[in-house]
Amino acid sequence: MSAKTIDGKKLAERTRAEIAAGVAALKAEKGVTPGLAVILVGNNPASVSYVTAKEKACRDAGMISCEIRMPADAAEDAVIDAVKSLNADSTIHGILVQLPLPKGISEKRVIDAISPEKDVDGFTPVNVGKMLIGEDCFLPCTPHGILKLIEESGLDVAGKHAVVIGRSNIVGKPVAALLARKAPHANATVTLCHTGTPDVSVYTRTADVVVVAAGRPNTLTGDMIKPGAVVIDVGVNRVSDPTKPKGYRLCGDADFASCAEVASAITPVPGGVGPMTITMLLWNTLESARRAAEGAA
Amino acid sequence: MSAKTIDGKKLAERTRAEIAAGVAALKAEKGVTPGLAVILVGNNPASVSYVTAKEKACRDAGMISCEIRMPADAAEDAVIDAVKSLNADSTIHGILVQLPLPKGISEKRVIDAISPEKDVDGFTPVNVGKMLIGEDCFLPCTPHGILKLIEESGLDVAGKHAVVIGRSNIVGKPVAALLARKAPHANATVTLCHTGTPDVSVYTRTADVVVVAAGRPNTLTGDMIKPGAVVIDVGVNRVSDPTKPKGYRLCGDADFASCAEVASAITPVPGGVGPMTITMLLWNTLESARRAAEGAA
Repeated sequence: MSAKTIDGKKLAERTRAEIAAGVAALKAEKGVTPGLAVILVGNNPASVSYVTAKEKACRDAGMISCEIRMPADAAEDAVIDAVKSLNADSTIHGILVQLPLPKGISEKRVIDAISPEKDVDGFTPVNVGKMLIGEDCFLPCTPHGILKLIEESGLDVAGKHAVVIGRSNIVGKPVAALLARKAPHANATVTLCHTGTPDVSVYTRTADVVVVAAGRPNTLTGDMIKPGAVVIDVGVNRVSDPTKPKGYRLCGDADFASCAEVASAITPVPGGVGPMTITMLLWNTLESARRAAEGAA
Repeated sequence: MSAKTIDGKKLAERTRAEIAAGVAALKAEKGVTPGLAVILVGNNPASVSYVTAKEKACRDAGMISCEIRMPADAAEDAVIDAVKSLNADSTIHGILVQLPLPKGISEKRVIDAISPEKDVDGFTPVNVGKMLIGEDCFLPCTPHGILKLIEESGLDVAGKHAVVIGRSNIVGKPVAALLARKAPHANATVTLCHTGTPDVSVYTRTADVVVVAAGRPNTLTGDMIKPGAVVIDVGVNRVSDPTKPKGYRLCGDADFASCAEVASAITPVPGGVGPMTITMLLWNTLESARRAAEGAA
């Protein structure tokens, strides 16, 4: 069997076109342009590159982007003050604090300062709680994108066995919670594996879909999965490769070649989960602007 | 094999003695007596009986209990006003709204009004979110009691397979989250089964511990479990029994007789999870009073 590659770029393009249409309609009907503010503290090159990509995607969709850059030695209270100003700014519908923050600044205090109404990353405790309880909330972007990619694979996970590898707060735990919900494109029996699991393959061998978010190459190989399984690879790892101009290449947490032999569908790295994460950020920002427009009407 | 019965009553007694000692120490050292307020709307007989048991346990531990009863036709805003008064009352450290509320009153709005600092049930979205993220919070009482009962069975769940049946907000989802945490008496690989799972036994047959919270008798039978498994039965069901004075008897979600043949340890119903739920409510109330005493010091 040779797996279908789930094209995250194409799905992202299609979804962003829908979002752009939604942005245009909101402008025309309510006179509201969605605005996303990004706070970037310091000059971490990876963070700068992520932020640049998010802002570009934002403008491409017809939204306003607002970038607030602060020096690496900024005081925690100054960062929190910046968040509070954005909370109060009616032209801003989404606030994103790029993580990680420099040492000495409490990510928890900064994230907690974001108004839940503008928490388009879905990281504040109240949004996380609403997600688990099943109340209306902003779904966290990477997990939300993963749900869309599974849907795109053609697999309906209802009644199926989904195995999630990794229990991070931003991917593993919320993906597990969302797949187990009584909802369309969910309702799966979900097993959450992690570094405390002695042998992950015991679980992955019976899985209809495996979401691997472990942060380690070759966490999942073809011999660990069931023929026809769907594999969603969340990992982004640098492995040294002297044949590449930069001396490294990117790879996921799954061994693509061997998994593709056994799976029915698999996401590539890059070009799978990554593009969908930014897309769902735009989705949440549009949704937040819609709610604000309704509230103000 | 004949399973050990995990005696929830005895464990509750022992834990309550510890709590009573903690209450006495807090009084002596800080002059603070923990206070739990219960709001009961209407006259649902089961609710009245639960509330009475909670208040008695509270007083037995040396705490102050405060009962606010409102008529079944109370206005939603009146219930919320009662919550707000208790939020502001420095003698009250825990606030409990007995559910279910009469029709026409939004449980969500009422629960959301409880200050997270006094949400000793752990039901508010912000507490649920903190639990999932792994921040310091009040753990929900039934799940917390279940963790204590598993510990009491002698099983260390780290690296083991835990299967949870049922995805309610007050039991199944939080139990699954807590068992998967990287923490002592946790760190299990967790599978969450529910009404969307076609055959629960596929998962329970490999489980080292099964927590059954499905609300249906005989959800778990001896042929569905692995020899030596630990069974925690959260169900409380009435089944008609003409030989009993009331015409019914209580039973759990597990078939006790057949499960006890195969399991290494099992909780009875009644006398298993039930007594521990109230105990962990007292635990949280004491903890809240300690925090308040520290904050005021």
